[in-house]
Amino acid sequence: MGTRLGQLVERLGGQLMGDANLEVDGIAPLADASASHISFLSNSKLRAQALQSQAAALIVSAADQAFISAGFSGALIVTNNPYVYFARAAQYFESLTALVPQPGVHASAVVAEDAQVAASAHIGARVVIESGAVIGENAVIDAGCYIGREAVIGAETHLFANVTFHAQCVIGQRGIIHSGAVIGTDGFGFANEGGVYIKIPQTGRVVIGDDVDIGANTTIDRGALADTIIEDGVKLDNQIQIGHNCHIGAHTAMAGCVGVAGSAKIGKYCTFGGAAMVLGHLTIVDKVHVGSGSMVSRSILEPGQYTGFYPLAKNSEWEKSAVIVRNLSTMRDKIRALEKTIKTLTNQDEKTL
Amino acid sequence: MGTRLGQLVERLGGQLMGDANLEVDGIAPLADASASHISFLSNSKLRAQALQSQAAALIVSAADQAFISAGFSGALIVTNNPYVYFARAAQYFESLTALVPQPGVHASAVVAEDAQVAASAHIGARVVIESGAVIGENAVIDAGCYIGREAVIGAETHLFANVTFHAQCVIGQRGIIHSGAVIGTDGFGFANEGGVYIKIPQTGRVVIGDDVDIGANTTIDRGALADTIIEDGVKLDNQIQIGHNCHIGAHTAMAGCVGVAGSAKIGKYCTFGGAAMVLGHLTIVDKVHVGSGSMVSRSILEPGQYTGFYPLAKNSEWEKSAVIVRNLSTMRDKIRALEKTIKTLTNQDEKTL
Amino acid sequence: MGTRLGQLVERLGGQLMGDANLEVDGIAPLADASASHISFLSNSKLRAQALQSQAAALIVSAADQAFISAGFSGALIVTNNPYVYFARAAQYFESLTALVPQPGVHASAVVAEDAQVAASAHIGARVVIESGAVIGENAVIDAGCYIGREAVIGAETHLFANVTFHAQCVIGQRGIIHSGAVIGTDGFGFANEGGVYIKIPQTGRVVIGDDVDIGANTTIDRGALADTIIEDGVKLDNQIQIGHNCHIGAHTAMAGCVGVAGSAKIGKYCTFGGAAMVLGHLTIVDKVHVGSGSMVSRSILEPGQYTGFYPLAKNSEWEKSAVIVRNLSTMRDKIRALEKTIKTLTNQDEKTL
Repeated sequence: MGTRLGQLVERLGGQLMGDANLEVDGIAPLADASASHISFLSNSKLRAQALQSQAAALIVSAADQAFISAGFSGALIVTNNPYVYFARAAQYFESLTALVPQPGVHASAVVAEDAQVAASAHIGARVVIESGAVIGENAVIDAGCYIGREAVIGAETHLFANVTFHAQCVIGQRGIIHSGAVIGTDGFGFANEGGVYIKIPQTGRVVIGDDVDIGANTTIDRGALADTIIEDGVKLDNQIQIGHNCHIGAHTAMAGCVGVAGSAKIGKYCTFGGAAMVLGHLTIVDKVHVGSGSMVSRSILEPGQYTGFYPLAKNSEWEKSAVIVRNLSTMRDKIRALEKTIKTLTNQDEKTL
Repeated sequence: MGTRLGQLVERLGGQLMGDANLEVDGIAPLADASASHISFLSNSKLRAQALQSQAAALIVSAADQAFISAGFSGALIVTNNPYVYFARAAQYFESLTALVPQPGVHASAVVAEDAQVAASAHIGARVVIESGAVIGENAVIDAGCYIGREAVIGAETHLFANVTFHAQCVIGQRGIIHSGAVIGTDGFGFANEGGVYIKIPQTGRVVIGDDVDIGANTTIDRGALADTIIEDGVKLDNQIQIGHNCHIGAHTAMAGCVGVAGSAKIGKYCTFGGAAMVLGHLTIVDKVHVGSGSMVSRSILEPGQYTGFYPLAKNSEWEKSAVIVRNLSTMRDKIRALEKTIKTLTNQDEKTL
Repeated sequence: MGTRLGQLVERLGGQLMGDANLEVDGIAPLADASASHISFLSNSKLRAQALQSQAAALIVSAADQAFISAGFSGALIVTNNPYVYFARAAQYFESLTALVPQPGVHASAVVAEDAQVAASAHIGARVVIESGAVIGENAVIDAGCYIGREAVIGAETHLFANVTFHAQCVIGQRGIIHSGAVIGTDGFGFANEGGVYIKIPQTGRVVIGDDVDIGANTTIDRGALADTIIEDGVKLDNQIQIGHNCHIGAHTAMAGCVGVAGSAKIGKYCTFGGAAMVLGHLTIVDKVHVGSGSMVSRSILEPGQYTGFYPLAKNSEWEKSAVIVRNLSTMRDKIRALEKTIKTLTNQDEKTL
């Protein structure tokens, strides 16, 4: 039932040091692994812990290999990125036991006659698919999802239960949309006439590339006139809000509760910590990393790491510092006055000397 | 197939300067418009761009009219608020092509026998409507919505797919509720007995006026004893949380991810930037504008613009400033000491003179 | 139809001063109560208001009893925690009129043959229950809920309409999950290979104790390898995000919009104000109270109250203070320079004396 280390290395690469016939049946952290597991050392600081691991085999970097092999009796798989190797091995073990959804349309689903559903796709219970929608090969649409008119779901893309995917929006291949996510609702666009808001129709789409993951209860608005664009490989965590006409570059990742206001243009390979917020109409270049809880209120035109949140303190200390922050301009004025006085004093002193 | 400019002006008002028989088939931004489009100049800073537009006609203000007509060869529609005119024109063009949902109840919907559903209303697939609920004329309840017991949905109100609208709550006419929104769950009310929370039943309702828009995955809690009130014309973006017993005044707008804690009373014509937060039991008067990412921790009794977020910086600079913020009271004490010393010095000097 | 005060006290405890045969039919705040209501005084500051109440009876503490009985003509119920007594009385009155969901499975529900559904449970319209799931005695699963494969819902637990509860996750007894909540989606776990994210399978579960309330549109991720744990009595408000492998201690409460990043370990009896954020892999001990809008970026190893948000100000004042905050290290350097100059001056002066 297990997998031989030799098979694993044949499939995933890496250099095996040890018995190729040794069988393992799963992957576990260093401390939890038993003799039927492989484990991994992705951080050299954990070398000592690695030596104590009960795992049958360890995935290690070339840099750690000598140290570990001197003190660990099990097998080693040497690779240049043990954490990536762990991810791939975990995917492999999961694939052995994962239930594969059966192709076909559940009897309780409501599918428009002119929707195009690939024969290999799985359409779960209570799914609704509107007129003209296209569901690609091996796509999985779990129970309760809603697919709007003329929407397009790419091959091998998986919508978990209770996703809402609106009319004419598009997602590419191998994507994942988690439960409760809502793709393609109207953007928040109004003209104000004497205090009263007049709705601006939102006639653009949401266009999502390949290999994009979208978290639970995340919302992405359709564009006002043009489209909202999410490029390939973007990873969005839960409870994120993306406004209309945003453009998010390839392989950018955002942690939970991030908000991006309308028409923001975000580069590739960026990261956003949890609850970071981006105002509308800003530009953020490639490889910008914004810390958790930070508000981006101006464009960022230089790659790098940016942060802006008030440091936590005991409440009584925060109260003191917050009062001073509120009156910082007074403090600045006092310092200026002091500087002036001292200048006078110094000059006087010079004169008196 | 197009619309003549004369027809448009007859319907929407404004003063036409140019050929009333010219046909247009849509509206587009200045840079994207082609010869079959009208476009609009809502900001005088874009005058130069407007002159380059390929649009058949431009919507302009009286203030911009002279400048534009001197350099633009197409027609003009002169109006006092071009952006509002754009919104109305866009609504008009959208109405020409929008699919009108057919009246009637989908076969897969589950509607209680004693629910009152107007014959002109559209009830989509898989909708559930509980006992005693009332659905008004021309209301549209899209697929997968849940309408609780004795809830009331006003005429021409549109619930997009997968909205949850709980028992006894009410929404007026011409409202829009986007997918994933949840109206009328229990407020977060507990009494604490020795560390353990005892639930307080939430027996109030959510009562929503006319012309209210509610964004995707926004949640509004029902009141504890009295009702939660959302007045006419309020516009809520996505992922907003409104606590129990809040009262939000007419024509107030909130951008995405805003949170309002219980029993806050917010005035009319206010705006809240994205992720702004309002603590409970506060009062905010009319015409208060709170910036994005700002925490409102006290009542605001004067109209105006308010802000409070930590400015973003390169991470290394933020780390420096955050340490100083944490120790601001030390800095204040140093300044006080300096002031004292200088006072002594000055006095000394005076004496020595 | 009413309840006699004597019956109420027999059921809920407390010492009755007044007519045990007096009938009341509900509970209301001091100002709203009429002669058929009881009301409660949970804050001594409201003593004067209590004397004006039209309520038939007041719930008061022993400390307030003498004052109130001197000026209030109705009955009193004396108890050590009037607010808890109010909660219990409100629960009692609600139980008199609440509709009890009928046992049984709605005809439109889709329940796997091998799911175990207690005969006393209520399964609403359009519910989907996957293979191997277990639904306990008197559980209520409202319309549109999705229960994944082998998930376990404890006895008397109530899922409101449109909850998504994923495979193998577990919730104990007497829990409440509000609409739109999503329990058990994949955590946000990736390995990065040259800028591209490789998904790490999330094979842990979410395991939730007894008496846990989970708010509308709240999301809780399943663990990566181990489980995400929510202990007994935890109360989570709406729109909260709990990352994978978090552990939240018993009787901890979080207000709306809170976010907790992965692997955070939070103690018992903690409270988190709205929109507070906790970074990943932190430890927070028991009885820590974090204020609204505060970012917890380091472990908190001492009980107490903690806060960290930028104080709100008029926008013009905030702009001034924000500029200074951005340049605080310059200000600190100026002060150091002043200190140095003054030291020199003072020494000089001493010398010149």
